Amino acid sequence: MSTDGSTDASARVTVLGLGAMGAALAGAFVDAGHRTTVWNRTSGKADALVARGAVATATAAEAVTASPLVVVCLSSYDGVHEVAGPLAGEFAGRTLVNLTSGSPVHAQETAAWAERSGAGYLDGVIMTTPSGIGNRDFLQLYAGSQAVFEEHRGTLAALGEPLHVGADTALSSVYDTALLGLMWSTLTGWLHTVALIGADGPGGNVSATAYTEVADRWMRTVRFFMSAYAPQIDSGRYPSGEFPLELHRMTMDVLLHASRLRGVDARMAELFRELTERAVAAGHAGDSYARLIEYVRTDGRPDGPAAGRPDGRPGAAPA
Amino acid sequence: MSTDGSTDASARVTVLGLGAMGAALAGAFVDAGHRTTVWNRTSGKADALVARGAVATATAAEAVTASPLVVVCLSSYDGVHEVAGPLAGEFAGRTLVNLTSGSPVHAQETAAWAERSGAGYLDGVIMTTPSGIGNRDFLQLYAGSQAVFEEHRGTLAALGEPLHVGADTALSSVYDTALLGLMWSTLTGWLHTVALIGADGPGGNVSATAYTEVADRWMRTVRFFMSAYAPQIDSGRYPSGEFPLELHRMTMDVLLHASRLRGVDARMAELFRELTERAVAAGHAGDSYARLIEYVRTDGRPDGPAAGRPDGRPGAAPA
Repeated sequence: MSTDGSTDASARVTVLGLGAMGAALAGAFVDAGHRTTVWNRTSGKADALVARGAVATATAAEAVTASPLVVVCLSSYDGVHEVAGPLAGEFAGRTLVNLTSGSPVHAQETAAWAERSGAGYLDGVIMTTPSGIGNRDFLQLYAGSQAVFEEHRGTLAALGEPLHVGADTALSSVYDTALLGLMWSTLTGWLHTVALIGADGPGGNVSATAYTEVADRWMRTVRFFMSAYAPQIDSGRYPSGEFPLELHRMTMDVLLHASRLRGVDARMAELFRELTERAVAAGHAGDSYARLIEYVRTDGRPDGPAAGRPDGRPGAAPA
Repeated sequence: MSTDGSTDASARVTVLGLGAMGAALAGAFVDAGHRTTVWNRTSGKADALVARGAVATATAAEAVTASPLVVVCLSSYDGVHEVAGPLAGEFAGRTLVNLTSGSPVHAQETAAWAERSGAGYLDGVIMTTPSGIGNRDFLQLYAGSQAVFEEHRGTLAALGEPLHVGADTALSSVYDTALLGLMWSTLTGWLHTVALIGADGPGGNVSATAYTEVADRWMRTVRFFMSAYAPQIDSGRYPSGEFPLELHRMTMDVLLHASRLRGVDARMAELFRELTERAVAAGHAGDSYARLIEYVRTDGRPDGPAAGRPDGRPGAAPA
C-alpha cells in the first residue's frame, strides 16, 4: 500500500465509457493536465470533455492505441468484453485499468484475457461517487501487478488516492464489499446512537449534528482499537489489557437498558451483546473484543448449529 | 466543544480515590507539573504517587481544601456520596470534577448536591483505560457549566483531550453510552468483514492486518458520510446525491451473498438490509442512508408492530 502523492502531468491516458463515472474520471485526467482521449459507444457524451481539452475518437480501437494507459468504466463486465474483446491486438503492450463494477470472478476472467493479450491489467474500485472524483480524500483500490500499479500510480492519482491491495485481481471487489460492509455497520450503529441520544430522557434531545462532532472525534479511538486488534486476530491470541469482554458485557447492558427505556431499535446492540455473552460463557471473559472474530466466522456458530442464537433460528445457510 | 491544547502547569489539583484509574489521573497531573494532592480511603495506594511528587493527606477534608479543583474517581456514586457528602462546607467555592462511572440520574443528583453546597460541578467520562491517561489522542467528556469547564480545561488537559458536551450534567454518561454503542457497532462490523475477507474464496485469505490498514484509511470516508448526514437528520430531509438507498440495497445484496457463500455470520448485514428494504418499500428509494434514522427510532417500527421484520418476531419490548 502506497500513498505517494506525486502525479505525472505529461501522461497520455484513454477513458472508454463516458457514463457519469467515466465522464468524471476523464474530466479529472483533463484537469490534471493529462493528454486525455475519450470514447463512448453512443456519441454526444464526449462533447463537454472535448470542450475542456479531451480528444474524442470515432472508434474504440483508435482510443486504445492513443495511450499506454486505458481506463475502462462501463456499466457491466459484459460491456467490457464486447468493447475490449475484439481489440486484443490493440491492447498488447498497454495497460488496461478496469473500473467497471463486477464480482471477484469477473475480475479474474478479465485479467486472464489481458494476460493472453499481452496487456498489463489492474482491477480497480472507486470508493466514491462521481462528484468525489479528483478529491484526494477518497480512495481508489487497485488489484493486480504491483509493478504495473507503480508505473501508473502517478497518473491515477488524478482521480483520488490510489491504494494497491494485492496481486490477485479478485481483491479489489472483495475489498469493496468488505469496506462497504464496514461502512453500513458503522453508519447503522451511528444511526442507532443518534436516535438514542436524540430521544427524550435525562440528557436527551441532543441534535445529530452536536453528537456527530463528538462521534467523529471518537472514531480516532475506535480506529485505534481496530489497528490494535488486527494483529491479535492474525495471531489467534486475544490479550485484553484493561478492557476485557467481561467489562464490555457490563457496559453493553447499560446501552441495552437505555435503548429499551427510550424506545429505540436495540437489535444491533442485542447482536453484539449476544456474541459477547457467548464468548464469556465459553470462558473468554478476560479476552479482548477481538476474540469475537471466532463467533462471526462459520456463521457465528463455532459450537454447532444455532448454538446460543437467542431466537433459536438456524443460521443462514450458504447460498 | 473546544480543543485548545494549552495546559496550566502551576495549578493545584486534588484527586480523591486511587484505584487504577484514579492513580493514573493523579500520575498524569504530577507528570504535567501540577501541585497534586491525593487521598484514598485505604492507605498505601498513595505511596508510589508521593514518591513521584504528590502530597498525600490523612483525611479527605484536608485533600479537598488543598486545591481549588477536586477530581473524584471512586468505584461508585455511593462512594462519592459517602466521601463528599460530609464535606459540603469544604467543597464550597471549589470545583468538583466527578469522573466516577454512573447513570445520567446519578450525575444530575450529584450536581444538585454540589449546587446546594456552593461548589462548581462537572460530570466527566474518561474515554480510555488507565494506561491511556495522559495521551492526547483520547477524549474526556465533561458536562456541566461551560464557564467552569473553561476555567479548568488547561489543568484537565493533562489527562487527554477534554471536550465539553453540554450544560446538562446527565450528558457525559449519555454520550459515553452512545459512543460505546458506536464503537461496538463499528468493531463488530469490522470483525464481520475481517472474517469475510479472511475466508477461503477468490481473493480471500487476506490477513486482518492487511485489511485493517485499508479499512483504517476508509474510515475517513465513513466519517465524511456521518458528518454529511447529521444535518439531514436534524432537518428531516434526506437528499441522496449520487448514493441513494436503492443503490445501497443492490450492493448490500452482494455483501449478503458473499457472506453466505463464505459461511460467515451475516446477521448484521441482514439487519441493515432489512432497514434499507423497509425504507425502499415505503417509497424512499431515492433518499440517502440517513433516512434510516426513522426506522431505528421507536424500536424500528414506524409502521406498527413487527412491520417488515423478516422473521415475524415482534420488536423487543421496552424494559
